[in-house]
Amino acid sequence: MSDKNLRIHLRARPVGNPNESDFECREAPIPQAGEGQFLIQNLYISLDAGFRQWMNEGSGDEYMPAMEIGAPVTGLILGKVLESKNSDYTAGELVMGRTAWESYSLADGTDYITKMVADPSVPLSAYLGLLGATGLTAYFGLVDIGKPQPGDTVLVSTAAGAVGNVACQMAKILGCRVVGTTSSDEKCRWLVDELGIDAAINYKAPGGVAAGLDEHCPDGVDVYFDNVAGDTLDQTLARLKQGARVILSGALAAYDRVEPPPGPRNMFKVITARALLQGFMVTDQVERYPEGIAQLSAWLREGKIKNVEQMIHGVENTGDAFCQMFRGGNRGKLVIEA
Amino acid sequence: MSDKNLRIHLRARPVGNPNESDFECREAPIPQAGEGQFLIQNLYISLDAGFRQWMNEGSGDEYMPAMEIGAPVTGLILGKVLESKNSDYTAGELVMGRTAWESYSLADGTDYITKMVADPSVPLSAYLGLLGATGLTAYFGLVDIGKPQPGDTVLVSTAAGAVGNVACQMAKILGCRVVGTTSSDEKCRWLVDELGIDAAINYKAPGGVAAGLDEHCPDGVDVYFDNVAGDTLDQTLARLKQGARVILSGALAAYDRVEPPPGPRNMFKVITARALLQGFMVTDQVERYPEGIAQLSAWLREGKIKNVEQMIHGVENTGDAFCQMFRGGNRGKLVIEA
Repeated sequence: MSDKNLRIHLRARPVGNPNESDFECREAPIPQAGEGQFLIQNLYISLDAGFRQWMNEGSGDEYMPAMEIGAPVTGLILGKVLESKNSDYTAGELVMGRTAWESYSLADGTDYITKMVADPSVPLSAYLGLLGATGLTAYFGLVDIGKPQPGDTVLVSTAAGAVGNVACQMAKILGCRVVGTTSSDEKCRWLVDELGIDAAINYKAPGGVAAGLDEHCPDGVDVYFDNVAGDTLDQTLARLKQGARVILSGALAAYDRVEPPPGPRNMFKVITARALLQGFMVTDQVERYPEGIAQLSAWLREGKIKNVEQMIHGVENTGDAFCQMFRGGNRGKLVIEA
Repeated sequence: MSDKNLRIHLRARPVGNPNESDFECREAPIPQAGEGQFLIQNLYISLDAGFRQWMNEGSGDEYMPAMEIGAPVTGLILGKVLESKNSDYTAGELVMGRTAWESYSLADGTDYITKMVADPSVPLSAYLGLLGATGLTAYFGLVDIGKPQPGDTVLVSTAAGAVGNVACQMAKILGCRVVGTTSSDEKCRWLVDELGIDAAINYKAPGGVAAGLDEHCPDGVDVYFDNVAGDTLDQTLARLKQGARVILSGALAAYDRVEPPPGPRNMFKVITARALLQGFMVTDQVERYPEGIAQLSAWLREGKIKNVEQMIHGVENTGDAFCQMFRGGNRGKLVIEA
């Protein structure tokens, strides 16, 4: 627990992949709660690739405003109310929501902060990973759009990532054959040996994702959980089975470009396969989060699913960790212990 | 009624748009029905852009085999049984199905021919247009995937074509604001003045479809009935409204290429708009054809919808007419009177 408020500020708008020099850690005094406000001590900060999008100029949308240069970087936190001058919040209560990459946050109850009740039988940080937005993205994307049936071939991109690992584990629980794509042979081995999926494709290997799909999905793909768009999406569209479902959940290949990347050429196959492609953002399912959390928690307690997380200590390391994530350094959810 | 069997043979595989020289009309004697067979006099031949696809080498799929050089060109016909040595078929009965571009066809009941009962209050040729595969493509694509609501902005590409004109008219009946894309100012005028849609975009005009969408769909698109893929699809994805639905019904821009055309770059917008894109082929809905035909026939009798067709006389002109269709020459359904 720092006696200063460490905060990461956006120093420059990233061009392409974010760079360490785009972020800057500043120290400030711990803020004081004014009338109607409460002070949150941030216990964990969630790192989410999707937030890269809102670092671009003019990227504000109905989901959130664009981040401004010099301002603290917007992020999701899990924290504890330390002091309250708001009658709805009491010191000691746990809260989650969107504040910034910082040690302490002020809130007044009109912002994107909600109280949470943690199940003591699961690790608290899991509420940012398996039981948080990324785990729930996998859960609702797979259940609502993917509708995997036992025996289906389910392909997951960025399979070792925060969303991907949960999608992989869930599809295995549901009786599917699961193939994941990732960026190194070492992560391929981890996916098969540790996470327990059926096959993994290193898209950087010779022949790329196309060769990997030819080898590991020779009969095509029933469900594709897309976290990257770009070439992986295109190659997969060409191999869709009849009635295939594609969850368009992320476009990692697009975050790091000023221009949108080349799109999928194989749209004709989408027609002949009568495939469904659907854009998905988990925030639409807020009212159903309890359902997803209950199921994922049950699987966690039963030992059927793992909360795969990588914990990094210190708010000052948040910017660097975020950049590492885009270089494919993490396995599972990347969480900062503040 | 010819005393010869005129047949159009595939002389060469089209490269890009089909060319008149890719087809050849040959004369043969009228075939004789053998045991178990029946002879069909083809009254009308349907011209369908989608069949271009199966003129490519190795294009055979679960839907139909690739056409072979030198063989008669596969096509949909509406005809009358002239002579039958098959106990299930009687001379005088009407039949529809897939044979070839020819004056007479032989069938044996194990092929893609079905009996039909025509409603005498509608023109017989409408069963190849408004009430045929193209009209039903518009009907089921719009109803099942597009789900247009009154007030929705519905965009239709190749709006003056066989599928497009029906999609436009239906969306108007359903209370939508309808914008169509087409290939000439003259067809734009026809779409607005004669077909009664709200605005039309000539995609060949300066600024292309993007400028037209900025002008005529300034608030975005709720439903896009896509018959072309390519740039029109891409520009539309960039302008999808929240919860938009895209019917991927044709890929005209793809038929005339050896390589698939550049795909849509704006897949990220599909995610943030939570849009649905679904591939659609009307042949999956065969069991529901009566429902679609009943509704479209009712609208036709009530004067709410037109059977827009262009009739060309003589089997010998089938190849030329098919080529003209790819040059944007037709309005509505192109039908050969055999």
